[in-house]
Formats: sequence, C-alpha cells, structure tokens
Amino acid sequence: AIANAIERLLAQQQPGPLSGRHVLITSGPTHEPLDPVRYIANRSSGKQGHALARAAQALGAHVTLVSGPVTLPDPGGVTLIKVETAQEMLDAVLDALPADMAICAAAVADWRAATEAAQKLKKEDGGNDVSLSLEQNPDILATIAIPGPQRPDLVIGFAAETENVVDNAKAKRRAKGADWIVANDVSHGTGIMGGDATRVHLVTGAGIEDWPSMSKDDMAARLLARAAEALPNLRSAAE
Amino acid sequence: AIANAIERLLAQQQPGPLSGRHVLITSGPTHEPLDPVRYIANRSSGKQGHALARAAQALGAHVTLVSGPVTLPDPGGVTLIKVETAQEMLDAVLDALPADMAICAAAVADWRAATEAAQKLKKEDGGNDVSLSLEQNPDILATIAIPGPQRPDLVIGFAAETENVVDNAKAKRRAKGADWIVANDVSHGTGIMGGDATRVHLVTGAGIEDWPSMSKDDMAARLLARAAEALPNLRSAAE
Repeated sequence: AIANAIERLLAQQQPGPLSGRHVLITSGPTHEPLDPVRYIANRSSGKQGHALARAAQALGAHVTLVSGPVTLPDPGGVTLIKVETAQEMLDAVLDALPADMAICAAAVADWRAATEAAQKLKKEDGGNDVSLSLEQNPDILATIAIPGPQRPDLVIGFAAETENVVDNAKAKRRAKGADWIVANDVSHGTGIMGGDATRVHLVTGAGIEDWPSMSKDDMAARLLARAAEALPNLRSAAE
Repeated sequence: AIANAIERLLAQQQPGPLSGRHVLITSGPTHEPLDPVRYIANRSSGKQGHALARAAQALGAHVTLVSGPVTLPDPGGVTLIKVETAQEMLDAVLDALPADMAICAAAVADWRAATEAAQKLKKEDGGNDVSLSLEQNPDILATIAIPGPQRPDLVIGFAAETENVVDNAKAKRRAKGADWIVANDVSHGTGIMGGDATRVHLVTGAGIEDWPSMSKDDMAARLLARAAEALPNLRSAAE
C-alpha cells in the first residue's frame, strides 16, 4: 500500500510521456458459466495485463484496468474494474471509453454456453455423454477497433497462438482492425501461460519485430515506451 | 514453516483420537482441458477440503491430501499431492490407499472433453456456434466405496446441490455406496461456494442431522471429531 502510494505520488509529480493520457487495458481470463457451479475458463493468469497497467501508470497515464478473475494483487493507482464474463468485460470497456490507447491483453473466451442452466447439471440428466452448445462471445478487440470518434488512437491486441504464431498474428491484425498485435507462443512447454517470462513478436503495419525473451514486466515497460512514442504521431495523423 | 513444524511436533507428542490412522482427503476443483489454453472448471475454492485436512492432522492422523488447482496455502504436516484432472485425482487416490477413512470433498468435474484438441481451437474453425462433446469422468467417491479389502472403514462424500438438497444427498449416499454424505446448498446467493462459512446436513445410515451455519474450519473439526468417534466401532464391526 505504501509502495502504491509512492508510485501514485511519483506519477503525479513527474509527468511521464503518457501524462494526461487515458490508457485502457484488459487483463486476465474470462469465465463463462455453464450452470451455477461450472464454467469454461482459460489459463491466463493476468500477469501480462497487470504488468501493462503498472507500466502505463508508471509513465504517467490515467489507467483503467478491466480484469477478469485473477489471483494477483490489485495494482495501485489505477482504476480497476473486475468482471467475470466476456460480455461484462465488453460492457466495462465501452463504459470506460474514450481512451487514447487500448491494450487488449485479456484472454477473452471465444465461446459461451448457448444457454446457462439455472440448476446444476446432474450426471443422471446427461447419461454417459453430453453435448454442450456454445455460441460466440462478442469480440472486444474488434469492437474497440471499429473506426469512429470513440476509437482510441492506438489499439493493441494480443494473440496467444500454439502454431504459425506470426502468420496468425498478421491475419488477426487485419481481421480485427488493430494497429499492433503482440503475438506469443503459448504451446505446452513454453511456460509463457501463467509464467513470469515471455517472448513476443510485435506485428505493426510496418512489419514484424522479434523481441528477445524477457520478463512480463520488462515487456510491458518496453511496449508502453514504444506506444508513448508512437501516440503523438498517430494523433496528429488522425487530426 | 515454523508453525507447521510446531503443528507436526504437537501431533507427534500428543496422540489424538486419530493417532495412527491414515485419513485420505480430496479437495478443490478439477480442471478438464478442452485444448492447450481452455478448460472446464468449477467454483470450488478447496477451503472445505483443506480445512478437513488440517482438522484431521490436528487430531493426530497421518493425512494424505489430494488437491486440484487451488490458490490456498499448502497445509503443513500433511502429505499433499497436487493434481489437475479427475483422472489424475483418481490415480492419486488409488495410489494413496489403504486408508482408515476417506473424505471426498473435491468438486470433481463430472465431464471432460471427449477429445482434447492438440492445438488451440480457433474461432474460424467453429463458425458462430460450436458443439462440445463431453464424456463422463471416473467417479472417485463410488470407486473408493466399492466393497473390498482396500475400502476405508469410513467413506464420506460431499454433495453440493442447488435444489432438493437432502433428497439428492440421500440418493447420492445410496448410489455411491458412501457411509456418510455431507450435503450443502450452493445456490447463487448462499455464498457457500468460495466463502468461509457453510451450512450442512449430515446424511448417515441413521438419518439426517441439520447442522447450524458455521465456519468451514468449525465444520471440519466437528466432522472429524464425529468420524474419530465412529471409526473404532466401524472397524470392529468389519472385523
């Protein structure tokens, strides 16, 4: 708490390159309920998204962090909005706009149950095998990136891939309308999902940068410094 | 660590009513992978199972705690085996036998994906709606309770229900072959799932006991004291 207070003070006293900017960040997994006790989840720990929030705050930004269920400590000095499902995350994100920059680091569930059972599903109801109908969740990154007056000047997405990492990330950048995609390989054995280190490829309109392996904190600091540099040019380009 | 060492010493120096007994306890949820990043989970925090392990250890038992993924501190003085899926939990439980008493407090997933995808499922593969085929997991409580030389003298199951709590628990006791069922209502709003307090009904062969609302620690102490009392009679009955 004292460290957070000091961080806040420093951020106020030493205006950084993101001073006066509103940075919106999503973090963590989403949980999609199947019935009152079961849900579909994913292995996102929220470490990367929370590190990004701290890095943006350290550069002087006003940060809104919209986070799914994580077991991390709440970062100090940021506006934290806790959500559970993808729909709740989208609603919170749209409420938080306008923002100068949006970084979608959450691992949003692509699908949710087509119908959430009001009572706990019983084994006897299903027999040996059951089939679960899933429907697509809203696409938060693509929604934020839709052109218009509310679109942040810089929209950054994450792509967690297990194969063809860079090609999938390039395709995702185009499909979502994002400015940058941070891509990484979350295959079994890389240790990135849930771990403290990461190795990413930054996909921008100008090409691909392969960043070396580094801590999620260092990656966050580097990405935010890059973004702070790019932001004024993007703004003047749009004006 | 010092507290744990003291607890262990006390357990050794002051033989309690479960001294020399092996108590096997399952705790937490299980996670059933759908692909490298997604899984089906449930809302069990493991608080009740871990409280039972501490209570059994405090009464002098040698405790084996088989736990799914939880964010609780590891209890000291017990043999802790961490697992992820229902199948891994069953394997660990069978490896830990023989035991004098087994308490199945884990919220084991009833279903798992019929096939785990080796690569991350992509939205583009599924289109708007997808169907997920699930197959039944092994039934750990029923497997432990099968009559035979390896069956613990006292087999206790938990029933987390959202409707007809006692009737479902009585049916579960018969269907699984358990000696006792601890039943509680985990409906939205009761706060039991993940919370610190619980309100249970103990279903035995002799009938139903409605216990008042109490902390999960107090419930654990009361249940273990009850079980320690019952155990010698059960053993002599079986011999």
